[in-house]
Amino acid sequence: MSHLKGSIKKIDVALKLKWIQLDNITYIDSKGRERLWESASRTTKKGDTDGVDIIATVKKPDGKKYVVLILQYRPPVNNLVLEFPAGLVDGDEDVEKAAIRELKEETGYVANKVLLTSPSLPLECGMSDANAKICVVDLEETISQGQELEDSEDIEVYYLALDNLYNEIEDLRKKLNCLVAVQLYTFAMGLNFNNILNGNK
Amino acid sequence: MSHLKGSIKKIDVALKLKWIQLDNITYIDSKGRERLWESASRTTKKGDTDGVDIIATVKKPDGKKYVVLILQYRPPVNNLVLEFPAGLVDGDEDVEKAAIRELKEETGYVANKVLLTSPSLPLECGMSDANAKICVVDLEETISQGQELEDSEDIEVYYLALDNLYNEIEDLRKKLNCLVAVQLYTFAMGLNFNNILNGNK
Repeated sequence: MSHLKGSIKKIDVALKLKWIQLDNITYIDSKGRERLWESASRTTKKGDTDGVDIIATVKKPDGKKYVVLILQYRPPVNNLVLEFPAGLVDGDEDVEKAAIRELKEETGYVANKVLLTSPSLPLECGMSDANAKICVVDLEETISQGQELEDSEDIEVYYLALDNLYNEIEDLRKKLNCLVAVQLYTFAMGLNFNNILNGNK
Repeated sequence: MSHLKGSIKKIDVALKLKWIQLDNITYIDSKGRERLWESASRTTKKGDTDGVDIIATVKKPDGKKYVVLILQYRPPVNNLVLEFPAGLVDGDEDVEKAAIRELKEETGYVANKVLLTSPSLPLECGMSDANAKICVVDLEETISQGQELEDSEDIEVYYLALDNLYNEIEDLRKKLNCLVAVQLYTFAMGLNFNNILNGNK
């Protein structure tokens, strides 16, 4: 264990709403000092993971691979946001099952298996304990079977070319005047990083 | 504008602490219905961007490029987290200046210019309006000039090989039993995505 490790002494709930609560955390820092930190938390978490994001690729009739993305209005940022298909894990639901379920509901694609599941990744660990796992699926099916959205959901599906994802995201972002979720944007930066370093975005 | 767009009718502050507040948002969804959403927000935001993450590469004497990363204890997740160097933008500070300042403070590296700055990217738009821009810097300097940490900070610097980042992150994560921030993990997945799709992680 690194010398950096701190520990939590107590957590006082400052306010608990239906979906989110705000906590005052008293912790001991790596130098042994007692300190305070404010943090938000989802009230819905049952296991160790709040949600799952799905990186789904699909081969289209043109022979090229596309990444399946979704666009929806997000009230906290009052804007449309381009994101990986994603959702909350239902209670004790297996994360891979949640990934396959959410992908079907939001995009209509039925995945048979998950290629890779990440560990639980903090989304914003300076101010919340929210986290997600990332599941990668490579779809053989090229035809969406139709969304199964909840009444409160209104989601458009987009297909952007895997081999030009960064530029296609930038073009779509400007065209729609939308935001792009950080995990999608940095994934695309990774795909395109040699070009970014060489100044040929 | 997409038909998906909603709009905010009013925001009621449920609780405002020093750093974070919790809001009840009343919004009109894309189908014209009035709905409620709970959301957290940083009280420190002055412009349109909360923070900046820095993707910094440096060439070491072995001729290889490394990514400069930091490890620190994060109270909201009660764990050590491996992350890009990052920090909050101070008031009206220019984002590139904030990136260069935070990189110097946390890692000791002095960047002369920023190669690329992303738009503001939502970090967790299901439950907060928190966002960050990503700045990319390619360091010519190979020697760190020493951290300048605040008294409350305790940060270790790590160098992981750019051409094997995904596997080096996984090895370090298991060795330290730490968490990995989502934007770093998905960046590394992007760098390594052909191998992931082909099953050769």
